[in-house]
Amino acid sequence: MRDLSGGLEFLSLNWATVREQWDLRQAIEGCARHGIPGIAPWREPLQAMGLAEAARLIRDHGLAVSGLCRAGMFPAADARGLQAAIDDNRRAIDEAAALGAECLVVLAGGMPPGSKDLVLARRQARDGLATILPHARAAGVPLALEPLHPMYAADRCCISTLAQANDLCDELDPDGEGGLGVAIDVYHVFWDPQLEREIARAGAAGRILAFHVCDWLVPTRDLLLDRGMMGDGVIDIRQIRGWVEAAGYAGLIEVEIFSRDWWRRAPDEVLRIVAERYRTSV
Amino acid sequence: MRDLSGGLEFLSLNWATVREQWDLRQAIEGCARHGIPGIAPWREPLQAMGLAEAARLIRDHGLAVSGLCRAGMFPAADARGLQAAIDDNRRAIDEAAALGAECLVVLAGGMPPGSKDLVLARRQARDGLATILPHARAAGVPLALEPLHPMYAADRCCISTLAQANDLCDELDPDGEGGLGVAIDVYHVFWDPQLEREIARAGAAGRILAFHVCDWLVPTRDLLLDRGMMGDGVIDIRQIRGWVEAAGYAGLIEVEIFSRDWWRRAPDEVLRIVAERYRTSV
Repeated sequence: MRDLSGGLEFLSLNWATVREQWDLRQAIEGCARHGIPGIAPWREPLQAMGLAEAARLIRDHGLAVSGLCRAGMFPAADARGLQAAIDDNRRAIDEAAALGAECLVVLAGGMPPGSKDLVLARRQARDGLATILPHARAAGVPLALEPLHPMYAADRCCISTLAQANDLCDELDPDGEGGLGVAIDVYHVFWDPQLEREIARAGAAGRILAFHVCDWLVPTRDLLLDRGMMGDGVIDIRQIRGWVEAAGYAGLIEVEIFSRDWWRRAPDEVLRIVAERYRTSV
Repeated sequence: MRDLSGGLEFLSLNWATVREQWDLRQAIEGCARHGIPGIAPWREPLQAMGLAEAARLIRDHGLAVSGLCRAGMFPAADARGLQAAIDDNRRAIDEAAALGAECLVVLAGGMPPGSKDLVLARRQARDGLATILPHARAAGVPLALEPLHPMYAADRCCISTLAQANDLCDELDPDGEGGLGVAIDVYHVFWDPQLEREIARAGAAGRILAFHVCDWLVPTRDLLLDRGMMGDGVIDIRQIRGWVEAAGYAGLIEVEIFSRDWWRRAPDEVLRIVAERYRTSV
């Protein structure tokens, strides 16, 4: 297991952690200032800044891009909606390629408004992924399928467990050709009794593309915006990191915290604490 | 599949659905007034009313008791805490027996304060269940292990899937001697891609002891107190009921809604709508 206490070599900041305080330019400059070697942009601030300019600034500061957030969101009520999702995913792949991102984070999507059919949503997500996979392979951008916590199954991501994500990878990439894998976020999966086994399975297939950390607070006061800083909650992050690294993952560790509390803090203070907790609580 | 449209024959009201408006006596009388043939008391209002008096009133009104809520909550920081949980579970079994309850609903419990060890919590829950099972069998009160939604894994119930609950039943009751089964609440399990299979598995073992309904709202604004009335959310309740009944369950259908919104409504109106939705949306 890697020793993180001595430096920030593997740390990456997901822009959403400071999304209410900083635009993408400020976040890139902030990472450089704090010695954080990686960043994970989101597409909205990326497009606001301009793709070429963002790519240049990231390169000039020597940052790695642990992932681009986010694509997917396939399920739709009709063929036009499905096609719009496919088209948008292709653009996201091109953006990730331009950034030299390690992966494009893909959320399956939830049920379209009015639907109660999770099985259909999962089928649409599978078909959408199958459709964009050749484009991703051609662009050299691996798709990182991220299972989200089951509390988001209805409206955000009908892939709720790492087992499901692994199954889908097996189905869409039966020969291990690549271009498809998983993003493992401790917040979404820590509760899962099959976690250790499924991490090993993903690793054995060479499919762990990203590792995200934050913490689960008790009590959690909001389904979306009450994630905790590493060390403030109940997730045994180190144990999960141990499983992920034992499975062969040696990439960046991305901090992604959606939190009204942390969005109220001074962003340089947030980055200072992120760096500190990365050394002590990850 | 049973036709529910013609009457309320299989309906049961979980007291918590009107817990802010009515004590247990009022809820019993309310059920009788609305032609609802079953009730599921909670232990606190039961103890406040007095066990003998509650049992008498329930009997006098001809109500069935679909379950007593709730026991379990085993994990503790020390041996004294574990023993206190065991003792309390024994009392709960005796209360359920006095009421003639179909089952005692058991939540595994979460991690004790300060702990990040879900594996230990699960082991403590298993050991606690094993300890009380003989008492439950002697009292003729089946223990209904209820998996709770993974968003409660940390602080309420470290058994998050029906697969886990089924596994635990297999482990503690390998010979199918009985006295142990599962409670299936659509709110907690609807997201689970293994649900149909695990319902069939529980049914084949004769272990479906209770079936609870409400709905998952989009958006859900609170982790605890924003459950929906059947039909107002995204759960395909009828599909799940179909699986449960195909697996052999023919018992009461219990409505359990924790909701600040519904707790603000006039309780007779709540019962009227519960009865209506039971016929149209379950």
